Amino acid sequence: MTTVKSIFRNKETYIDKEVKLGAWVRKIRSQKNFGFLEINDGSFFNGIQVVFDTSLENFDEISRLSIASSVIVEGTLVKSEGAGQEFEIKASKVEVCQKADLDYPLQNKRHSFEFLRTKSHLRARTNTFSAVFRVRSAAAYAIHKFFQEQNFVYVHTPIITSSDAEGAGEMFRITTLDLNNVPKNEDGSINFQKDFFGKSTNLTVSGQLNGETYCAAFRNIYTFGPTFRAEYSNTARHASEFWMIEPEMAFADLEVNMDIAEKMVKYIIRYVMETCPEEMNFFNQFIEKGLFDKLNNVLNNDFGRLTYTEAIDILEKSGKKFEYPVKWGIDLQSEHERYLAEEHFKKPVFLVDYPKDIKAFYMKLNEDGKTVRAMDLLAPQIGEIIGGSQREDNLEILENRMNELGMDKEDYSFYLDLRKYGSFPHSGYGLGFERMIMYLTGMANIRDVIPFPRTPNNIEF
Amino acid sequence: MTTVKSIFRNKETYIDKEVKLGAWVRKIRSQKNFGFLEINDGSFFNGIQVVFDTSLENFDEISRLSIASSVIVEGTLVKSEGAGQEFEIKASKVEVCQKADLDYPLQNKRHSFEFLRTKSHLRARTNTFSAVFRVRSAAAYAIHKFFQEQNFVYVHTPIITSSDAEGAGEMFRITTLDLNNVPKNEDGSINFQKDFFGKSTNLTVSGQLNGETYCAAFRNIYTFGPTFRAEYSNTARHASEFWMIEPEMAFADLEVNMDIAEKMVKYIIRYVMETCPEEMNFFNQFIEKGLFDKLNNVLNNDFGRLTYTEAIDILEKSGKKFEYPVKWGIDLQSEHERYLAEEHFKKPVFLVDYPKDIKAFYMKLNEDGKTVRAMDLLAPQIGEIIGGSQREDNLEILENRMNELGMDKEDYSFYLDLRKYGSFPHSGYGLGFERMIMYLTGMANIRDVIPFPRTPNNIEF
Repeated sequence: MTTVKSIFRNKETYIDKEVKLGAWVRKIRSQKNFGFLEINDGSFFNGIQVVFDTSLENFDEISRLSIASSVIVEGTLVKSEGAGQEFEIKASKVEVCQKADLDYPLQNKRHSFEFLRTKSHLRARTNTFSAVFRVRSAAAYAIHKFFQEQNFVYVHTPIITSSDAEGAGEMFRITTLDLNNVPKNEDGSINFQKDFFGKSTNLTVSGQLNGETYCAAFRNIYTFGPTFRAEYSNTARHASEFWMIEPEMAFADLEVNMDIAEKMVKYIIRYVMETCPEEMNFFNQFIEKGLFDKLNNVLNNDFGRLTYTEAIDILEKSGKKFEYPVKWGIDLQSEHERYLAEEHFKKPVFLVDYPKDIKAFYMKLNEDGKTVRAMDLLAPQIGEIIGGSQREDNLEILENRMNELGMDKEDYSFYLDLRKYGSFPHSGYGLGFERMIMYLTGMANIRDVIPFPRTPNNIEF
Repeated sequence: MTTVKSIFRNKETYIDKEVKLGAWVRKIRSQKNFGFLEINDGSFFNGIQVVFDTSLENFDEISRLSIASSVIVEGTLVKSEGAGQEFEIKASKVEVCQKADLDYPLQNKRHSFEFLRTKSHLRARTNTFSAVFRVRSAAAYAIHKFFQEQNFVYVHTPIITSSDAEGAGEMFRITTLDLNNVPKNEDGSINFQKDFFGKSTNLTVSGQLNGETYCAAFRNIYTFGPTFRAEYSNTARHASEFWMIEPEMAFADLEVNMDIAEKMVKYIIRYVMETCPEEMNFFNQFIEKGLFDKLNNVLNNDFGRLTYTEAIDILEKSGKKFEYPVKWGIDLQSEHERYLAEEHFKKPVFLVDYPKDIKAFYMKLNEDGKTVRAMDLLAPQIGEIIGGSQREDNLEILENRMNELGMDKEDYSFYLDLRKYGSFPHSGYGLGFERMIMYLTGMANIRDVIPFPRTPNNIEF
């Protein structure tokens, strides 16, 4: 059997030849003596037209096929005389695998994305979602390719963790304890020694700290895996389960970190535009007008780079009225980030050197004693797409910071060991994979770029 | 800065040139007027020798460096006159990033794998584990490359699930309920409506059923993600968290399934042998003598293919005394699988057409009414490495089977929909990623091929 993609990509070798395809019926038109099927086998964004006529013994059966029915078609690929397609298959045989039930919910009419979310097992059969998830696959591969080509080692950091990854967000508990009969200690606290791992355990919110230990062994590493947040935020940009990419680089300062992040973003965009032209064209036409301009603008310009302090200055001088007042020390809100990326710079910008009090404990303290070597990449429309930093590699400064925050150093002994046994300047960042897909496709809701999205009170299939 | 790998792979361009490297000290020897460091930057299996002498102003500091110290070395790459290395760096500058504490636990002596498991944040710095995890990274990439080159769509199936994936194994519960105060319904049962997703939820044991829905949209798909088993099996081959690859192919029968599985296994082996020759050589010399013979034997032979019934016949006629007696209908034990693969066939073998009663509900029933189109790939030493099947695509037969097993069809409505709306012959399998790494490296314990392994009562970092 061949595939629709193979035919489209190698038309010349197929024309006037016999082809055989397994596929699903997307459209059907039939008349007394002949008919047309549009079939799609999922290998490609486009479908292909099949012409059938009464020379086929099961002409009647074919004529009565319904949307979504599965068929195996044999015939000759011929130049099409009709408008709308360059070639079509003149069928010599159409074997019906199964005629789809007539209550198939995705008949050929417009469905809202909201409705389609309730059919997450079927929606990838529609144009929009087949394009989204083909792009998602291509982008994932682009990321692996980018890092592997540069000799980064891919590390599977653990999903189940006993650490609480200070401040990264609310966590889901993992347990095998009987909820009807939770074992207690004498003092009334829960006896986690009876739990599967003998400890209280959670789903990871970040692989970074584990990733750093592998950075100390392999120089350059990256993670790419699922991460979790048990937060009741029902926004279009938050999901409870999402995938994250976290590279970590040894002997690398924040400049190198930004260089790699910028190269990576451009690499992903270029790879997806090259390998999924039909899908990207669809998004540019129907989902986000001007998508190509936006992406080409990213490819053809250096990202902006400025300090948080400079950004505050720009915001203060903007003359713009923000809902949240601007003042040095504040955590930037979405409105501020968007003003900077969309209106002021009109391209992605890195902000660096944030006040230490609004950033994580592990970020490298600057000499001013009040800012840290943090970096966020802000993109027009989407806001923060990457967050990272140079890491604090000085044991004493790191311990002081942990003391200030009242953290238990025992819990982080493995992390502190990295600062005892050959500490080294290093940097890394996290890319939210779904945010990148939203940016690439113009899809506005994170639920529409995850195959089976998980959000508060929502877990289908 | 350059890397050790870059130097080894492009010696000619570096010789007699200036180089600059960030790295860690693996060995140190010093005399009155000169000394040698062996440094390793993690980019490559081998390290590189650095010669330093009193012309460096910090000669004394360098002479007193300890194992694991971090340095940035500048100098000229020169042909080495000493035995043991082809080239070395004549240092013009050695900047000490940090002198490692002297209690660094991995001094240069042999450590047992068991001891190293207690240092999972440091063990990747040793020869064995740097080789294991570099191979793990290469094998993961090989898998993506293999499927992407054939236009399979990579799907992220959900990690948190409300389904219980019939029979695949014990599951971990995920919850945000307060274990000190579990909310109850009036009838005394747990009120999961108060839980984060409004339902009882678990960690996935397989992405297959979700994967099949995407197969119906994209023809060929694969998953590659973490899966979980809450089983108290403390063996060398079981972990509570591991990664699995699950391809699913439309319009594909069990023959196609076996073809792809065989091609994939060979592709992974070939890719890893080509891209990690130093690591593989190490395994062949020090971890599994004869590893190369074993792997070349796999590459150069077709895998065996036989039915379960034929296998039972071979076992019965073997004259061998097994602990578990052989009889048609039994679930094969490790001893049987190993006899077949190691002693009888001396290569990987596919067993197909197992009795339906020992296999999962979704496998396609054969015409004999008592066997199903299951396939297991058994490999010498390792046993089952792949399990798969053609899927039951007939709605009525599938529903009958679910009724026989007392399953609740409501819970699987999304899965049954695939048999209503364009059902199609399809097949797929699961490859346990860690088993593959064990097979590739000769490492005998699954805890030694996972960066931070999770097993009952064991969760470090």
